[in-house]
Amino acid sequence: MTYCVGMQVDRGILFMSDTRTNSGVDNISTFRKMFHFDVPGDRCLTLMTAGNLATTQAVISLLQERGKSPDERSPDIERLPSMFQVARLVGQTLREVIGEHAGAGQTASSTFHATVLLGGQIGDGEPRLYLIYPEGNFIEASPDTPFFQVGETKYGRPILIRAYEPDMSFEEAMKLLLVSFDSTIKANLSVALPLDYHIYENGSLAMGRTGRVEADDAYFQEISSGWGVALREAFSNLPSFTFD
Amino acid sequence: MTYCVGMQVDRGILFMSDTRTNSGVDNISTFRKMFHFDVPGDRCLTLMTAGNLATTQAVISLLQERGKSPDERSPDIERLPSMFQVARLVGQTLREVIGEHAGAGQTASSTFHATVLLGGQIGDGEPRLYLIYPEGNFIEASPDTPFFQVGETKYGRPILIRAYEPDMSFEEAMKLLLVSFDSTIKANLSVALPLDYHIYENGSLAMGRTGRVEADDAYFQEISSGWGVALREAFSNLPSFTFD
Repeated sequence: MTYCVGMQVDRGILFMSDTRTNSGVDNISTFRKMFHFDVPGDRCLTLMTAGNLATTQAVISLLQERGKSPDERSPDIERLPSMFQVARLVGQTLREVIGEHAGAGQTASSTFHATVLLGGQIGDGEPRLYLIYPEGNFIEASPDTPFFQVGETKYGRPILIRAYEPDMSFEEAMKLLLVSFDSTIKANLSVALPLDYHIYENGSLAMGRTGRVEADDAYFQEISSGWGVALREAFSNLPSFTFD
Repeated sequence: MTYCVGMQVDRGILFMSDTRTNSGVDNISTFRKMFHFDVPGDRCLTLMTAGNLATTQAVISLLQERGKSPDERSPDIERLPSMFQVARLVGQTLREVIGEHAGAGQTASSTFHATVLLGGQIGDGEPRLYLIYPEGNFIEASPDTPFFQVGETKYGRPILIRAYEPDMSFEEAMKLLLVSFDSTIKANLSVALPLDYHIYENGSLAMGRTGRVEADDAYFQEISSGWGVALREAFSNLPSFTFD
């Protein structure tokens, strides 16, 4: 599995992804699931991928035009004039990669499925966040639904729904994401540290803070143990049940 | 979907189940998913069912021997001498019902699948809690894993894991179950109030407190709104994230 969250706040867009891939519980690896395309002053795009690793790596490589020699590369993703067009390009690439392998003797294509989160900003356009489906179509985040999760979405969702505020600072939003990832990591072995993050600041048209939260990160460990204590306290402070 | 929890504490076993069934989001109904077989002084058994409603109703009816006229009924489930044998009977009945309908022109049997939670006590035996699979086999709760969930298990699991204590009072355990159900109901439309519960007290060999938490239950509403506030407070009390 995988867990990735893209979250829009008033100040920008936060991206966080885990790095565990698995093919059975006895075959786990660490792979990056977050990718960037940036042309400073013009655009900054972040993609996060969930699903079949061969599919997602092929999609990223095709978007980077790795089929061409380095000199000849001028990827469309770095030239298209709007986030909507980039989302269409990513969706189309995703659908083609899945279709290519699904056709090679497989009757079901679900094995090759993947989903992509795309967010960022181009030129004078608004910052946008998209969830792109294996079929190539996509939906866009809005004030009603300001964040998207892909992969193992359930364990980490309740706290996102209850603690999210659009006017959060980047620090508060990072804390919220780390709590959501902690709940997921505790419950699903196929989601694991380290976590990659990128914080895009609206209007900057450049890479913001990026980093990797390692397994021995002191703050993450503090959040992880502190959240268990905090939950138990919150629970004990609720009014008591009494039988009539 | 469905959400049922069976939870063993030192004092006894708590059972709670929702009552929503659905066949698509446009076809919802309310059905009881908790059933009792009790012979005071000899045994008290509680079953909770998740899965195909026709399957689970058939299983319960067969266990009640409704195929016989009322005078002739003497169900095995009320006579077998141990919880283990009752679990085998329930598992066998479940497998037969699924197999019967899966054979009638269906190539896959998953549509008819169901899962059963069985708990209670017989005579001098220990109180037991079992999770019975569609294949008819089953697992038993233990101090390491003192509760079983069936149906939509993910949203309500983190708080169970973090706040469960074996020496909880029945009141505390009821509060914990209600918080777990609240998180699930908020996140999944196919789980809904009213909730049925039964609290079996170890050694009583008789029905304990049973009841139904209705949609307008004042305590449930207090828990539901209070938990959102408590979570946000717990979150804000965690140490702040700072960029290096």
